[in-house]
Amino acid sequence: MTDQMSADNVGRVKVAVLGSGSWGTTFANIVADAADLARKSGEGPVAEVVLWGRRAAVVDAINESSENPDYFPGITLNGRLHATTDAAEALAGARVVVLAVPSQTLRENLASWREHIAEDAVVVSLMKGVELGTLMRMSQVVGEVLELSEKRIAVVSGPNLAREIIERQPATAVVACPHYETAVLLQGLCKSAYFRPYTSTDLVGVEIGGAMKNVIGLAVGVAEGMGFGDNTKASLITRGLAETTRLAVTLGADEHTLSGLAGMGDLVATCSSPLSRNRTFGEKLGAGKTLEQVVAETRQTAEGVKSSESILELGWTHGVDMPITEAVVKMMHHDMSPAQALLAFMSRSTKPERYGV
Amino acid sequence: MTDQMSADNVGRVKVAVLGSGSWGTTFANIVADAADLARKSGEGPVAEVVLWGRRAAVVDAINESSENPDYFPGITLNGRLHATTDAAEALAGARVVVLAVPSQTLRENLASWREHIAEDAVVVSLMKGVELGTLMRMSQVVGEVLELSEKRIAVVSGPNLAREIIERQPATAVVACPHYETAVLLQGLCKSAYFRPYTSTDLVGVEIGGAMKNVIGLAVGVAEGMGFGDNTKASLITRGLAETTRLAVTLGADEHTLSGLAGMGDLVATCSSPLSRNRTFGEKLGAGKTLEQVVAETRQTAEGVKSSESILELGWTHGVDMPITEAVVKMMHHDMSPAQALLAFMSRSTKPERYGV
Repeated sequence: MTDQMSADNVGRVKVAVLGSGSWGTTFANIVADAADLARKSGEGPVAEVVLWGRRAAVVDAINESSENPDYFPGITLNGRLHATTDAAEALAGARVVVLAVPSQTLRENLASWREHIAEDAVVVSLMKGVELGTLMRMSQVVGEVLELSEKRIAVVSGPNLAREIIERQPATAVVACPHYETAVLLQGLCKSAYFRPYTSTDLVGVEIGGAMKNVIGLAVGVAEGMGFGDNTKASLITRGLAETTRLAVTLGADEHTLSGLAGMGDLVATCSSPLSRNRTFGEKLGAGKTLEQVVAETRQTAEGVKSSESILELGWTHGVDMPITEAVVKMMHHDMSPAQALLAFMSRSTKPERYGV
Repeated sequence: MTDQMSADNVGRVKVAVLGSGSWGTTFANIVADAADLARKSGEGPVAEVVLWGRRAAVVDAINESSENPDYFPGITLNGRLHATTDAAEALAGARVVVLAVPSQTLRENLASWREHIAEDAVVVSLMKGVELGTLMRMSQVVGEVLELSEKRIAVVSGPNLAREIIERQPATAVVACPHYETAVLLQGLCKSAYFRPYTSTDLVGVEIGGAMKNVIGLAVGVAEGMGFGDNTKASLITRGLAETTRLAVTLGADEHTLSGLAGMGDLVATCSSPLSRNRTFGEKLGAGKTLEQVVAETRQTAEGVKSSESILELGWTHGVDMPITEAVVKMMHHDMSPAQALLAFMSRSTKPERYGV
């Protein structure tokens, strides 16, 4: 068993993407498009992409008409994209395994896939969240369940609203792996004309950035719903990133990661976009609906509602001051009104801009 | 002559704000509101604010009906705000002199005001730009013309769209002065229920952040005009901040300033707001109008169009890689089309996320 991928054995590489939701489908399409480009230019590794999905109807539609009717009706996916409902088939011989399932189902899914994952595979997480109860990041869950060293675990994150990327609009992302050469190889597998990946070795920073942006997105949504403008939102985004950075650095991240695409970039995209579930959830609350009303009319709970408590607990455990996360938890779980939360935030003692890092 | 303000001699302090444009008027109003709060609570220094304006009609309207009809018709300003067209009157005995005139007129204005500025005054710049020809930041122009030490020069900057703050919506800002105690005192003078200032000692970082956000705002506007979505814009904002940080750090700034309100915060607010002139200018260009057409239908040239060349020159002088600024200069001054600029940017060699700092 080699400890990581090396440059000369990835001329062709099978990539299994597990999860045919919005982001899984989109990422599989990126890799297939990147392979076309590599095939044409003769430069870089060429991927063969297999997408695993739970629902046969979706899998069939992808194979028969290059379309994912659940998420992107009318959008034509890369014709070489092959889908299957059989995880063993998807995983057989895959050197790169990309995970795109709901955060809280990861552990269970991994347990059932484990035997099919190749010994020398690199496992890439596209998920953003913190596991309830254990307070583990997704890469930690992967490491624990698969007994993989961190050098074989990577994450991809950035300002990546799936809807825009599936339309092949320009975007950027960070590909992070503690083993730098693996990050570079994964970068090669997903670099296309419209998707520009940058490398990093900082798993912790990229993952905390991804988890926190949902929480801050809720807060920004609340401000939006209360009728506040771009100063207020930009202030919340900036101070939200400050507390994200305090938490991430305390957990071992490089603070620059948080100023980058997986921190600031993802946060800005989420907070600007009407497509974001977290922002929309907060907006309804800010506009005066009760929590019960918002939950009742929301088909899928916003990720930040669930993860805000775990993240605050993570902060407390490590002595990190997280006033915005605390306000979100109080609004989402302890009946604090948006107006009270705002007042509490604005009347904190004045401070130097940089503290607690 | 004391070298800076000390805590015990600022129980009451006269603040002169020079410039009754949109931001000068708004900042004067913030200080007057902050004084009301200090008066009521008995805490902090109480400011008496005098606003200087060039136009008698505006000055009279402020004094007679607490309104600036040029910029904020219908908005009631703080009733204690006094305005004058006489700079000598405004400056007499002012311990704090706040400058809010167009960047390129600063040197000339200062020369005529110089004799009236008290020897022990602290001078605060609200201006964002780089002087054409000299490539000096505004605080450097102040220091040179008034022969002031940096310890007596401060800047205030942040996500501060005037239109929102004049409506007393919550906002935050950075008050920077190399002499920390002076920054704290100025913080006390402008802290109100809706305006939350943080202190910093980093003039360079705050000023470069302010100047660069206009240039990046143009680029984001172009992307918007081309029909791109929030990923693209968030990517441009993030990579734009990366080059802002490279430039600022090379010039001596603390990189954290750029991750803060005067860097990221101001940039995000500018790039999100339909109120931003720079963004709007770029948007028209991105939508397919020629530069001549956009200039012809723009009443006031966007600041970023002028300053992009100076800033790029500043970058070249110091060997800083600034691909987005370069693309903006090529689009604004050398007839490069938005599509060509985008292609040039996306096809740069792939890189680690962090380089050149």
